[in-house]
Amino acid sequence: MASKQRDISVSEFFAKNRHLLGFDNPSKALLTTIKEGVDNALDACEEAGIVPEVLVEIEQLEDTRFRVAIEDNGPGIVRGQVPKIFGRLLYGSKFHRLRQSRGQQGIGISAAGMYGLLTTGKPVRILTRTGKKKQAHRFELVIDTKKNEPKVRSDTTVDWKADHGTRVEIELEGAYRGGRHSVEAYVRQISLANPHATLRYRGPSAGRKANAEAGGDTPERELHVFERVTRELPAETTEIKPHPYGVELGVLMQMFRDTRARNVKTCLQGDFARVSSRVAGEICEGAGVAPTRRPSEITREEADKLHKKIQRTKLMNPPTDCIAPIGEDLLLRALKAEVEADFFATVTRRPAVYRGNPFLVEVGLAYGGAMTADDSISLYRYANRVPLQYQQGACAITRAVTQTDWKAYQLQHPRGALPVGPLLLLVHIASVWVPFTSESKEAIANYPEIIKEIRLGLQECGRQVATHVRKRRREADELKKRAYIEKYIPQVAIGLQEILGFDERERTKVVTRLSDVLERSRKM
Amino acid sequence: MASKQRDISVSEFFAKNRHLLGFDNPSKALLTTIKEGVDNALDACEEAGIVPEVLVEIEQLEDTRFRVAIEDNGPGIVRGQVPKIFGRLLYGSKFHRLRQSRGQQGIGISAAGMYGLLTTGKPVRILTRTGKKKQAHRFELVIDTKKNEPKVRSDTTVDWKADHGTRVEIELEGAYRGGRHSVEAYVRQISLANPHATLRYRGPSAGRKANAEAGGDTPERELHVFERVTRELPAETTEIKPHPYGVELGVLMQMFRDTRARNVKTCLQGDFARVSSRVAGEICEGAGVAPTRRPSEITREEADKLHKKIQRTKLMNPPTDCIAPIGEDLLLRALKAEVEADFFATVTRRPAVYRGNPFLVEVGLAYGGAMTADDSISLYRYANRVPLQYQQGACAITRAVTQTDWKAYQLQHPRGALPVGPLLLLVHIASVWVPFTSESKEAIANYPEIIKEIRLGLQECGRQVATHVRKRRREADELKKRAYIEKYIPQVAIGLQEILGFDERERTKVVTRLSDVLERSRKM
Repeated sequence: MASKQRDISVSEFFAKNRHLLGFDNPSKALLTTIKEGVDNALDACEEAGIVPEVLVEIEQLEDTRFRVAIEDNGPGIVRGQVPKIFGRLLYGSKFHRLRQSRGQQGIGISAAGMYGLLTTGKPVRILTRTGKKKQAHRFELVIDTKKNEPKVRSDTTVDWKADHGTRVEIELEGAYRGGRHSVEAYVRQISLANPHATLRYRGPSAGRKANAEAGGDTPERELHVFERVTRELPAETTEIKPHPYGVELGVLMQMFRDTRARNVKTCLQGDFARVSSRVAGEICEGAGVAPTRRPSEITREEADKLHKKIQRTKLMNPPTDCIAPIGEDLLLRALKAEVEADFFATVTRRPAVYRGNPFLVEVGLAYGGAMTADDSISLYRYANRVPLQYQQGACAITRAVTQTDWKAYQLQHPRGALPVGPLLLLVHIASVWVPFTSESKEAIANYPEIIKEIRLGLQECGRQVATHVRKRRREADELKKRAYIEKYIPQVAIGLQEILGFDERERTKVVTRLSDVLERSRKM
Repeated sequence: MASKQRDISVSEFFAKNRHLLGFDNPSKALLTTIKEGVDNALDACEEAGIVPEVLVEIEQLEDTRFRVAIEDNGPGIVRGQVPKIFGRLLYGSKFHRLRQSRGQQGIGISAAGMYGLLTTGKPVRILTRTGKKKQAHRFELVIDTKKNEPKVRSDTTVDWKADHGTRVEIELEGAYRGGRHSVEAYVRQISLANPHATLRYRGPSAGRKANAEAGGDTPERELHVFERVTRELPAETTEIKPHPYGVELGVLMQMFRDTRARNVKTCLQGDFARVSSRVAGEICEGAGVAPTRRPSEITREEADKLHKKIQRTKLMNPPTDCIAPIGEDLLLRALKAEVEADFFATVTRRPAVYRGNPFLVEVGLAYGGAMTADDSISLYRYANRVPLQYQQGACAITRAVTQTDWKAYQLQHPRGALPVGPLLLLVHIASVWVPFTSESKEAIANYPEIIKEIRLGLQECGRQVATHVRKRRREADELKKRAYIEKYIPQVAIGLQEILGFDERERTKVVTRLSDVLERSRKM
């Protein structure tokens, strides 16, 4: 049996288990490909301090075959990095740091390319340029699944109108869906959480597709533009050091082996967040480990003692300037630009912490207008500004929404389900490390700290919407009452005329004065 | 930015995302570690044709720290392979073949060792011996997470009472839970689907733990033995070739590049299941590709044509002798040995196919006895004889059970939920490739073909249980009726005596004859 034992490359693994990365079925594969491309585009622009312009293009080549292109005005990619970034799984800059970004793992875009290759045999095409004085490069490359290595098919310099940016093209087996999971709906959702980005989408659209199916015509590709509402980029986020509460014993031991610090005390102080010189000394003393010990010589037993002492030491929460919210004002403007409604509310909560990781919750809400009152509300979930499309039922956001008492906020609310009413609810979680339930990043794990923060945000918005609904209801009630009374004032006057023998002039005066009294009493 | 781009090792990836492998929380981590150890033990025994004896030991070292040992009487592991099997993720013999086995990915046991190292800093200990004439080896090793490479801490030869077998010891942060997710309950579930294996469990047990908590005593470690009910091993399963319907274009192209066949026709015929020489010729002709072409020279366009032609060609279903069911008889005996109930039924369905992969469904059922009638039924889910413990709600088995109309089978059935009644239901899916929804292997994906087969199996068992329940109910009704009538026969006789002037003898005769008539009419 020994002879059959062999290595499995990570790309083989994910090719066989591609449902783990969000490529379960053709329509999801199409959306996941776009998601990965746009995530990378926006991350790149923001890291380079460029206000993003992203174009998403879809061309339907055959019944189930599509060409997807994502083009950005980002900094471009230096030639030597292109093959690995697009042709190797688990390669990237975002995994080994604690910093808020859309991508985390270095899998997404290579996996999309691999899926394209698997289903159509076509290479990924990349066009990229790093500046006006540099030439643009065009690559065609495939991933060698057995080795998890890129294979470059062609690499040429070309002319490109753009000064800098990247365009990725992937051909894949897919399916275009309308409705809530359509591509336009997805791009619209992205634009809501990224008010600083202009997004353009050209491709089949839900409305047109229906026409085309009815008439048998090829759907024309429309251009949808989702304009930015601000040119201000999100605040630049900084990388943070790990907070000691979130570090496991094995990781602590690894850090002692890897550190450049010369002794345990300076290692604790320098390599972790929120450990002052005094606290580091306290930890060493409490654990019975000399602060002057070399980190690399710390034994397992000593590390264990230090680890236990850390859990018992009171430490400040991690710094929270590493998280950039969308902001109440921008979220409001984005909602108003995209949604027709009577009332809007937004809340940005203060940062909180789960397992040593800082995170922050934002809630936005639009009520009334054209939305239907008889269906479940629309719930838009986001993590680090990326819309979450699937597994709504497994997500901490959904749990927090269904657990909130919406009846108190003037909405119908069937037990254990989403509330019912003309409401669009947007919940955003930003963190240096979002705890997804799977690497296809579809749902957020149920950490109690996270659920609590979401609930507080929902309650804050809920109260505002309740006030609005009550006020509207009171106004409507009063209008009705007033109309009712006004209808009877002339009758009352006629009655008075008959009883008291008023003439016409006096009757008219009574009507005027009664209306007047009513008007004044209403105003009080 | 380019300078920050770097490789992420697969072990780093899974260490950071260990919830993906079933190490979300301490109690689940304990169970997952046992699962991985037992899966490997049983697979190894069966592949070597040895009737398995597996011992699971748990020792509680501290409040949240456990030492888990899994020992088998399998073939042992040759010395050179030990480090990679236990200290490297994505290494194994089961990934690159289509064959029914418990393990698939070559991740499980190394991941458990990595989790132990991460949480306690302790190495994995392995004791293994390949035969009476060989010496036993003891290893201590850790996984170098950054490189996904094993590091051997010690490697010695030792004496061991066993002639052959393997013992793995992992120390980890964990939590012992009672009830449905307890270790004994899990081992019991394994034994139900593996009637050829004897399983021993020594460790804290749910009952004892409650005592210990009350009395403050350390729980004594009890030995639970789950004896085999047969010495017959499951039929040996064979590896199969991929069925053309399940092969994607990219994979087909890869196969053309890798094949040893000299032309396309012999490649199609030799490398795939169910492609005869005639059919291979047909495919080539239909695709307009000369059958004599060298496979390695086939272009993407030609491969695309061949791929499309394959989908339009009628092919036999894949061979199904590659699947070894538990069998109706053994499943029945296992259920009777483990469950106290009034009625048992088992069904083994014929193999079916999803996406070119053969699979087979078995259903077992125990009704009545000591089980409570007021709660939801107990549902035991299995894939390739391995119990599935989590994510019941996301599993195709659960979906099939809730979609079946249990009211027709004399059970209460709240809409969209599990039925209610004194029922234990066991559903087993065996396949050369089980489509799990995640790599922690907790739920089976919702393929319509799979759900259909489960439903048919459930209906077959359901009808049997309905007949049983109806018969029981009829018997109970009749007993009641009879008791009722018998009570009144003497009264009737007294009445007759008074009306017709019977004497005592005649009255007694009437009672006897009436009872007699009643008895006979009941028997008809």
